[in-house]
Amino acid sequence: MAEGEFEFIARRLRPLAAGTPGALRLLDDAALLDPPEGAQLVLTKDAMVAGVHFLADDPAAQIGQKLLRVNLSDLAAMGAEPIGYLLSIARQRETSEAWLESFCRGLAEDQAEFGIGLLGGDTVSTPGPVTLSLTAIGQVPRGQALLRSTAEEGDDLYVSGTLGDGALGLKVLLGELSLNAAATVFLADRYRRPQPRLALGRALRGLAHAAIDISDGLLADLGHVLEASDLGAEVWADRLPLSLAAREAADAALEAALAGGDDYELLFTVPADRRAKVVRLASELELPLTRIGRLDVMPGLRVLDADGQPIHLDRTGWTHF
Amino acid sequence: MAEGEFEFIARRLRPLAAGTPGALRLLDDAALLDPPEGAQLVLTKDAMVAGVHFLADDPAAQIGQKLLRVNLSDLAAMGAEPIGYLLSIARQRETSEAWLESFCRGLAEDQAEFGIGLLGGDTVSTPGPVTLSLTAIGQVPRGQALLRSTAEEGDDLYVSGTLGDGALGLKVLLGELSLNAAATVFLADRYRRPQPRLALGRALRGLAHAAIDISDGLLADLGHVLEASDLGAEVWADRLPLSLAAREAADAALEAALAGGDDYELLFTVPADRRAKVVRLASELELPLTRIGRLDVMPGLRVLDADGQPIHLDRTGWTHF
Repeated sequence: MAEGEFEFIARRLRPLAAGTPGALRLLDDAALLDPPEGAQLVLTKDAMVAGVHFLADDPAAQIGQKLLRVNLSDLAAMGAEPIGYLLSIARQRETSEAWLESFCRGLAEDQAEFGIGLLGGDTVSTPGPVTLSLTAIGQVPRGQALLRSTAEEGDDLYVSGTLGDGALGLKVLLGELSLNAAATVFLADRYRRPQPRLALGRALRGLAHAAIDISDGLLADLGHVLEASDLGAEVWADRLPLSLAAREAADAALEAALAGGDDYELLFTVPADRRAKVVRLASELELPLTRIGRLDVMPGLRVLDADGQPIHLDRTGWTHF
Repeated sequence: MAEGEFEFIARRLRPLAAGTPGALRLLDDAALLDPPEGAQLVLTKDAMVAGVHFLADDPAAQIGQKLLRVNLSDLAAMGAEPIGYLLSIARQRETSEAWLESFCRGLAEDQAEFGIGLLGGDTVSTPGPVTLSLTAIGQVPRGQALLRSTAEEGDDLYVSGTLGDGALGLKVLLGELSLNAAATVFLADRYRRPQPRLALGRALRGLAHAAIDISDGLLADLGHVLEASDLGAEVWADRLPLSLAAREAADAALEAALAGGDDYELLFTVPADRRAKVVRLASELELPLTRIGRLDVMPGLRVLDADGQPIHLDRTGWTHF
């Protein structure tokens, strides 16, 4: 480890760990964590590569926040509450101090927002693109984690928030789609700073049969639930919740909502006799929860239009099942 | 995530998680871990970049093993027993199936050797060098973790095994040093497959005052202990344990032992009235434990030759304190 990396840890990362007792001020080989009583730990790890998972000219503060939030979204999908995280940064010699300062400032803001702290990690040099990896740790009451494999026949299918915004935001940022200024700003922010649905995930414990977060696209992620639960589903395309900004994109909006990915909304299944509870929950959380389909035992996944006719798509999202 | 990455997880990673119940067959968003009773969890995360932390033509099986072992070495330094790990792989489009198969086979062998399993992780594409990040999770009885900050004045200073082999192994592999065949093979293996001193770490709980693993070099890592414990030390250069192979390298051996890094031996401090216990432990573990110096309150770190005269070095290892 070059001297610059010790300094980086001392100057940039130690302040992020200051409020995390188990981080031991990042002075030790590893972090110490007191496991919560009566809980299971939930662990997830996601990596991001510059130019692949984020744009090299994205604001550095938002890159750190996106990395943290996509991991927190995985915790939300299991119904877990976040505890802390570990971070690996592979940075280039050319990575500027200003970039690193902004990256860490973004993390500090999100730590405050989500009530968590840095537990540990490391920093290395790379001749390639900046590569980030984050491990998030959460807790869930024993036996109450939401899984993908426990959906049941007849369950209603719901999503939170609106779909397709992240994928459209990326298109806008890449110059592949041109929209008005308000829509551009809204969609770019949805792409760069997804909102992990932690409060929703907690509330779905004991209410939903199964849950997943939408990172690969609605159809792909629903496919994971169907595969794990050995069920089929129909999805009602005209019910998909679209933001006003997404509607500006016309036809591209439906495609983004079905197969775009980068939504980080929760997709969950609930038995039909609990519909009133879902309506109440949406009101409590001030978050749209939209019923978009139904699970059944017919293998496969059918997307239906407003007349109940199947829509055929040939998108990445379809190839997984 | 491209389709190839789902297949990669299913074909290569799922078998590594087959024996880890909390991995949920890698079908869920995150892993579930039942925290052990009466224990604290120990968490560490290290990354490696091709061309920086390993050689692009290193055998793939040994790259996976080295990544796992350097993390297990961090657990050993805290006196922890390993539970499992999460893995991120950023691979190139050109990364061959054979390389990935070998990489995962190496991990499978080490999982069996160390009694752990894969808990989760992800795989992404990168246009840059292969970049790997691993988070290892261990446990330690509550309050018994070995720290860097708890060394005391008058403690004896010990190291396990032999020093400098890893750094010399790298020199041999880079063609910067030419030795006989037996020494070459031995040192290359020490560089590629360090041996995490897990049994030693466990045995040092309640015996050692402080411990660290030597990854950055003896002097650098001792510097971390001194800084954290607010002490100074003297190190007796003629007592440093060198392997027969390292001795072949003559003068380069001492330099490698002091400042080379990549040893993954444990450096630990023990009060002088426990010397007999350390001797007994070395015998039980069949592992050399060598007393190489002493902690005191004089600030700084003094390396002394056989006549007690200070040796002045101008190495990276020296610049940290």
